[in-house]
Amino acid sequence: MKTGTTGNNKFLKELNETYILELIRSNKQISKADLAQLTGLSPTACGIIVTNLLEKGYISEAGIGISTGGRRPVLYELIPESYYSIGVDIDVDFVRFILMDITGQVVYRDKFLSKANYSAAVYIELVEEKIKQIIHRYKIEEGRLLGVGVSIPGIIDNLTHEVVFAPNLGWERIDLENMMSGTGSFPIYVDNEAICSAICENWIGCCVNQRDFVCINMKSGIGSSIFAGGNLYRGCSGSAGEIGHIMVDPNGPKCGCGNYGCLETLASSRAMVEKAQKQIKQGLIADLTDIDSITVDDIISSAKAGNEATRVILIEASGYLGLAVANLINTINPSKIVLGKELDKFPEDVLEHLKNIAFAKALKYPVSRVEIVTSELGEDTSALGAAIIPLKKLFGYQI
Amino acid sequence: MKTGTTGNNKFLKELNETYILELIRSNKQISKADLAQLTGLSPTACGIIVTNLLEKGYISEAGIGISTGGRRPVLYELIPESYYSIGVDIDVDFVRFILMDITGQVVYRDKFLSKANYSAAVYIELVEEKIKQIIHRYKIEEGRLLGVGVSIPGIIDNLTHEVVFAPNLGWERIDLENMMSGTGSFPIYVDNEAICSAICENWIGCCVNQRDFVCINMKSGIGSSIFAGGNLYRGCSGSAGEIGHIMVDPNGPKCGCGNYGCLETLASSRAMVEKAQKQIKQGLIADLTDIDSITVDDIISSAKAGNEATRVILIEASGYLGLAVANLINTINPSKIVLGKELDKFPEDVLEHLKNIAFAKALKYPVSRVEIVTSELGEDTSALGAAIIPLKKLFGYQI
Repeated sequence: MKTGTTGNNKFLKELNETYILELIRSNKQISKADLAQLTGLSPTACGIIVTNLLEKGYISEAGIGISTGGRRPVLYELIPESYYSIGVDIDVDFVRFILMDITGQVVYRDKFLSKANYSAAVYIELVEEKIKQIIHRYKIEEGRLLGVGVSIPGIIDNLTHEVVFAPNLGWERIDLENMMSGTGSFPIYVDNEAICSAICENWIGCCVNQRDFVCINMKSGIGSSIFAGGNLYRGCSGSAGEIGHIMVDPNGPKCGCGNYGCLETLASSRAMVEKAQKQIKQGLIADLTDIDSITVDDIISSAKAGNEATRVILIEASGYLGLAVANLINTINPSKIVLGKELDKFPEDVLEHLKNIAFAKALKYPVSRVEIVTSELGEDTSALGAAIIPLKKLFGYQI
Repeated sequence: MKTGTTGNNKFLKELNETYILELIRSNKQISKADLAQLTGLSPTACGIIVTNLLEKGYISEAGIGISTGGRRPVLYELIPESYYSIGVDIDVDFVRFILMDITGQVVYRDKFLSKANYSAAVYIELVEEKIKQIIHRYKIEEGRLLGVGVSIPGIIDNLTHEVVFAPNLGWERIDLENMMSGTGSFPIYVDNEAICSAICENWIGCCVNQRDFVCINMKSGIGSSIFAGGNLYRGCSGSAGEIGHIMVDPNGPKCGCGNYGCLETLASSRAMVEKAQKQIKQGLIADLTDIDSITVDDIISSAKAGNEATRVILIEASGYLGLAVANLINTINPSKIVLGKELDKFPEDVLEHLKNIAFAKALKYPVSRVEIVTSELGEDTSALGAAIIPLKKLFGYQI
């Protein structure tokens, strides 16, 4: 029993330190007296923990607070340049990088073009090289990088953390965490791209304090992630939120998964691009001519410039997305649905159409409690969320 | 601070007592020494709590255990007839009652016929009368009824606990908990029928130790409930799992909710009965003749007896149910899906068809992790789950 008790005490000590660190973060500046009051720990215990945190370099004295009777208290705050975190978003078109300091501020962001036919090994080599450059450029000392979060457009196994399947990268059963673990003396955390976006929206975006929300991202595929009761909901093996293959039209086209009328065959970037290419061939879209290089951004720009044919492509896709959103409203009963990646660039009237379909097709009661919004953080949400993973771990949050 | 600390201590004392009680329940028989070891509390502290529980009449000495060196220890166990809980399942056709003892054993079960046109007030009068009878018959002393759980086929508001909408009972905004609170000196807990079934399956049924599962019930309507990460997931306002109005056929019939092709219009008991009635009129179902009194049980019996027309009705409904199950597999990634109420009576080949459609339409990865089963507890799951609510509260579980 003795060993067990000692072990527990040590564990509790670590928990207390984590909790104090989180209180310093969330309060921005705070005194030992307030820490004691908020934690219920004795002032002496708080003092010891604060000294530890000062020694480890996480925090510094921030100045003198307002007196509540006695001596004016010393305030403590996080040192922004003390510890860092890196987020990497590996996707088909780009690989994005975020360097974040311990306070959550973005210090650096960058991206480079990637190609769908890159193997996992090529991605890893490029990503590792870039991480080394960032560490060198920002003079991040050994032990001061809290970790690297990596966002992947695919299913990640809950238990093994393997990439089970990332169809648009052509990856299957890739143990990225293990393959990258030699990159440096910091942990690697691999997670799904929609989950990374949800972590981002919940930490610094439009879902701070939201307990039940869904993030839907559209890129080449369509994915979503669910926060249930204040925590990420991953399902029993990590694939919860995979709405791309929900049937929205039984007479729809055949999908790569073998079924017909999956959401992705009717509403993904790829589906819209293919539809536009056909119409360009038929001479139906005058302002788009370069069939091979067309992207969904071109379709959106064309629709925004007033082209009716491209607008119809977006409207049709948004109608199917509206059906999927209605499903989620009924099944999940979220307080918020956040549309991200390409979706936040959609023209206003197209987004209105999506919302109208969703609200008309779902039950009135959950509709009355939900808000559908677009992300305000653009295409970086997954890279940001990936960078937030090591921070959440440091501050004692469940991932 | 002093008051706060005292309050906290009292709160902790209650938590410790709850935890000890739960350990006695889950271990069936246990000694003070083992309780001390499992809780980390001192033997003296455990002794005080055990004495309290003996005095309150929850537990008794059960005999002498095996010695692990010293004196043979006294074992403690729950007294089955010490405290009770009642579960009531209010539905359109029947109202069901369960009396359960503190150990979870069913002491008594009964049901009476109800009518869809009963008002909430009539239901309450009938239910209160029955509760009084049960209390009298089993000589349950004042304070020994832990509570009454009430299962309702409708949406229950998370915060107010009001019945927001129970379409098949014709109820809207009924504050049943409040209306029934004068029944006696025990708490009333109102909850959704599919949620009650999930509570039942998780406590005594096929989902003990399952963290992520879905229960689907078919009665006049179709509802589901979700356990996510070991806890009930209710959504932001209590309507999570309302899959009855998910669109499964855009060309389907008009639904009461205003949309077309909702699951309930194609696969509920009511939908199947209406389809059978039409076919009986056309003389297509020889073995069913009484159009007005036909139920889904008759359709199931007829199909089991070899009638092809009724079998086709079930097969068609199960195909649509399979689509809805595929949606849930993709979105929720559960380890188990439990089919309950009328669904567990379906003929084997009809259930096979449902599973085949679900597995074919969902993604391979979540399919490889899910099991679709029928409930083994029959039509009582909601009444059982309702009775379990006061027990779960007593033993410190989240509801």
